[in-house]
Amino acid sequence: MVLKGAELGLLTDLYELTMAQCYYQNGMSGRATFSLHVRTAPPDRGYMVCAGLEDVLSYLEEWSFSESDIAYLRSSGIFQEDFLEFLPQLRFTGDVWAIPEGRIFFPEEPVLEVTGPVMEAQAVETFIINQVHLQSVIATKASRCVWGAQGRMVSDFSLRRTHGVDAGMKVARSSYIGGAASTSNVLAGKIYGITPAGTMAHSFVTSFPTEIEAFRAYGRSFPTRSIFLIDTYDTVAGAHQAVIAAKEMEERGDRLFGVRLDSGNFDSLSRAVRTILDEAGLDYVKIVASGGLDEHDVARLSSDGAPIDIFGVGTRMGVSADAPTTDMAYKMVSYSGNPVMKLSEGKVSLPSEKQVYRSKDSSGQMTRDVIAERDETDIAGEPLLEKVMEGGRVAGPRATLQQMRERLEFDLSSLPDEYKALREPAVYPVLHGPGLESLRHTTEQELRAKAGAFAHEGQR
Amino acid sequence: MVLKGAELGLLTDLYELTMAQCYYQNGMSGRATFSLHVRTAPPDRGYMVCAGLEDVLSYLEEWSFSESDIAYLRSSGIFQEDFLEFLPQLRFTGDVWAIPEGRIFFPEEPVLEVTGPVMEAQAVETFIINQVHLQSVIATKASRCVWGAQGRMVSDFSLRRTHGVDAGMKVARSSYIGGAASTSNVLAGKIYGITPAGTMAHSFVTSFPTEIEAFRAYGRSFPTRSIFLIDTYDTVAGAHQAVIAAKEMEERGDRLFGVRLDSGNFDSLSRAVRTILDEAGLDYVKIVASGGLDEHDVARLSSDGAPIDIFGVGTRMGVSADAPTTDMAYKMVSYSGNPVMKLSEGKVSLPSEKQVYRSKDSSGQMTRDVIAERDETDIAGEPLLEKVMEGGRVAGPRATLQQMRERLEFDLSSLPDEYKALREPAVYPVLHGPGLESLRHTTEQELRAKAGAFAHEGQR
Repeated sequence: MVLKGAELGLLTDLYELTMAQCYYQNGMSGRATFSLHVRTAPPDRGYMVCAGLEDVLSYLEEWSFSESDIAYLRSSGIFQEDFLEFLPQLRFTGDVWAIPEGRIFFPEEPVLEVTGPVMEAQAVETFIINQVHLQSVIATKASRCVWGAQGRMVSDFSLRRTHGVDAGMKVARSSYIGGAASTSNVLAGKIYGITPAGTMAHSFVTSFPTEIEAFRAYGRSFPTRSIFLIDTYDTVAGAHQAVIAAKEMEERGDRLFGVRLDSGNFDSLSRAVRTILDEAGLDYVKIVASGGLDEHDVARLSSDGAPIDIFGVGTRMGVSADAPTTDMAYKMVSYSGNPVMKLSEGKVSLPSEKQVYRSKDSSGQMTRDVIAERDETDIAGEPLLEKVMEGGRVAGPRATLQQMRERLEFDLSSLPDEYKALREPAVYPVLHGPGLESLRHTTEQELRAKAGAFAHEGQR
Repeated sequence: MVLKGAELGLLTDLYELTMAQCYYQNGMSGRATFSLHVRTAPPDRGYMVCAGLEDVLSYLEEWSFSESDIAYLRSSGIFQEDFLEFLPQLRFTGDVWAIPEGRIFFPEEPVLEVTGPVMEAQAVETFIINQVHLQSVIATKASRCVWGAQGRMVSDFSLRRTHGVDAGMKVARSSYIGGAASTSNVLAGKIYGITPAGTMAHSFVTSFPTEIEAFRAYGRSFPTRSIFLIDTYDTVAGAHQAVIAAKEMEERGDRLFGVRLDSGNFDSLSRAVRTILDEAGLDYVKIVASGGLDEHDVARLSSDGAPIDIFGVGTRMGVSADAPTTDMAYKMVSYSGNPVMKLSEGKVSLPSEKQVYRSKDSSGQMTRDVIAERDETDIAGEPLLEKVMEGGRVAGPRATLQQMRERLEFDLSSLPDEYKALREPAVYPVLHGPGLESLRHTTEQELRAKAGAFAHEGQR
């Protein structure tokens, strides 16, 4: 389940490999830098959360083409023999700078920059976008759910409707970075060390002759961790059944952990159930709510004071249903020492290797970010991008998921609330450093002149 | 990359395993049937396409728990020793009925039914939903894009923004079932035998001193398969450059395959580029359009007669952006020979094992489906569910992707256009057989009586 880069050489867009052949055949070994960024903020996102770097670094360290990969490429009839014979030697030998996982970022800011021989730096594009895109989208969505929950716990219940197996793992990982307390995905528990969490299904309840028999059996199997699902027949009636079973557990010295609501009006039902539990002296029994929740539901229920202790957030978090994608792109920004940019309509990019500087006021609140050339000095603020790979090897210690999660907690505590609003947040100021702005101007002028010359030549 | 069920035992929601322990400890070995269905149609979907069964069958055949899985479960402190010692023996021994991949289905209809000892049939829920949900959502979305293209080709360009690696593979697979002609995903070419397709990136163009040098180099490397990306600087100017390079290829006896537009107004640009190509005698050069397209864009451009030969459809198909999920659920419908259903608000399910019968009129056009009990006789129409697994082993030959794709083509040719409309399609008639309707009535009454009794007991 942990991805092996060595098995993933062909998990790429065909054009990465056809371009590689062409670079190879033309002896183009110049170093290029590619920059990964989001062009525009997804709807209602005042910030985004970096995630996915760890998978990128593992991939780059192991990236290669197996004999069977090359046999397939040969059989496709697309490639030429000289390139196929070269492919077994191909490895990633470049450098990577990145904003660490768990930190917040904004549109236009480079999340990650890859520098290396153009063939290598280009060919790893597809996987890099695939992983950082998914994980950043989900970490951002999870962070919104956790923010909405206002201190109540959020648990990732999304595995059944994440887009496939890898997404199931990466959603657990990135929602944990985003602040989720636990996941229903047991393999994510094993691989990532995230606390697994779960309750019971309606089918479990209906496979017993009566609801209370289901509760009794489960309570005996899980004397301290049971969460009874109480809405199979009728939520209020189910709460009374849960009380009976919980009292029997108390007599054995056990303790019911919680009850779960999975349908109906969560606000009124949670209050009714809380009253039933409290009147029975079961104030320690937690209430879990699940079923089609997103950050707005969670925020509303929390603001309204619904006595829900844990939100099980599934499908809508696991696919970031309101914004399942962003326009994250990986663009060449320099080649052979020269700045490069793109002029295509609506897709203009910023040239050269970059750094982002983040400034705060005297109370520690973020005030603005500045995107600058990487070697531009005298820009105030904390530089966000770190060198994380050098010559194809990971540079420096790898962070734990816990550290990534703490980075996000800290960044969010520094971000003024107006940018964290779940609807129509304010737009955080992201400026361009003077050196970058000047370079962009010059590069754009040169390119437009070149494009004009092409057009002239073409029309002859 | 091909999933091994043996590695996926823990890729499941925790509750599947806690319920399994409880079934085990209570000696509950009765046979249960679970039914997978979509409750309501996603927006604008008049039909859906079955996909994902093949992965489910492979998973069920290999499903097991490794020593390291069990060591992890033991370390979690959640499970008890008797169950952990039983786990290594657990395999899937049940039967599966399913609607074959590539066939169309409608809300409420069982796509797949699993019958087996309750512990087994329950525990495989998460993976089954995960795979059939994703692949059916994407096959449906792809089918809409292909329908919109009205005979023009659609190619899957989505890998960079699919949700992870597994989705990248499954989107290629299910969009091929949905009618896509090719995929950019090279590994999907290797694993599934789908034709790989691709062009070049803007970065490729900008890494050469001039646009035409990029085209010339690529044309030499790929003498018959080159597709030049012509919008890096200016699309019309780029088309003129492409003409020069294509004419040079002709002189060498080669042929440019196509040009790609990736930004701007595709309708006017494709017409302008077509004219430039045709006037140069390059009527054989195809025009590819890509960049943020969905089925509605593709349909509009096709209806308006834009001279686009191939649509590269990426992100919005690869995540089914307008409807990334459906409410697909896996519900117990019988246990130990008794029908079971769920009464939760808005989630009432149909009891018992089922079959779906599809009727057509004398011209071969579909008229209605009937959901019936599986053993209900004398319902007119073609039965859709087939027995695909018996006693844990695949029953009957496995279909090829090509066969699945042909099934869909045939089903779509039988489905009246009103149900294929991309916006506000008509609702296809899905009825309940008399036996099922009567069973549902009886079961619901019995359950409501039981729930009432619980409520009474609970309030005492």
